[in-house]
Amino acid sequence: MEWLDSIKWDRDGLVPVIAQEAASGDVLMFAWMNREALQLTAERQQAVYFSRSRQRLWHKGEESGHFQQVHEIRLDCDNDVVLLKITQLGHEPGIACHTGRHSCFYSVLRDGAWQPVEPVLQDPATIYRQPKP
Amino acid sequence: MEWLDSIKWDRDGLVPVIAQEAASGDVLMFAWMNREALQLTAERQQAVYFSRSRQRLWHKGEESGHFQQVHEIRLDCDNDVVLLKITQLGHEPGIACHTGRHSCFYSVLRDGAWQPVEPVLQDPATIYRQPKP
Repeated sequence: MEWLDSIKWDRDGLVPVIAQEAASGDVLMFAWMNREALQLTAERQQAVYFSRSRQRLWHKGEESGHFQQVHEIRLDCDNDVVLLKITQLGHEPGIACHTGRHSCFYSVLRDGAWQPVEPVLQDPATIYRQPKP
Repeated sequence: MEWLDSIKWDRDGLVPVIAQEAASGDVLMFAWMNREALQLTAERQQAVYFSRSRQRLWHKGEESGHFQQVHEIRLDCDNDVVLLKITQLGHEPGIACHTGRHSCFYSVLRDGAWQPVEPVLQDPATIYRQPKP
């Protein structure tokens, strides 16, 4: 598809993706997509990333139920960064971070140290399905 | 410095950086920093990136006068992405993009094509210093 060909994929075939909450403007997380992930994201209007650690497609929310509804897909001037405008589903307020916080960007540099400034909204142990014994 | 040691620098010694306008929440641009750039950014409270194309430090605004005042530096849960809360100086509304637009993320995916939806606020030819003859 032509719009996918416009993307300047990096040497690993990936593009960086910023997920921003549509309603609040909060930047919730940052991840990567390959071509298939971006195509699926556009088709489903739900965020599908590519997990670099697991080297496979990662349908955000597949384990937690915290899916990301995609309202808009934007591309930057260099065609090498994607911005998603999303609603973070599954909890109110939305939980995008695997630590159970609203946003992954919960640490602020203060007095020469990183300090967490956002509360844990839900215990991660209750978010993710436990493997069956 | 300890807070710099916490960052998981990538194989090129860089970390991805999202610049978000503090007042509006708009995501203005995405760039990269090396260790020196991030240290300088924290010291000066102005964004200093590392240009991958030019392979050198890039004090944002050095040519255009459109500096970025940094209010807050955040780090994500994996310690490998930085989020800056900034004020984009030099024009009102701020111009972060080299095309003369407010944000680099001015293209939206609509009907299977990328469509520019943000106006050019200033002709780039009048923003950047012309080389002397």
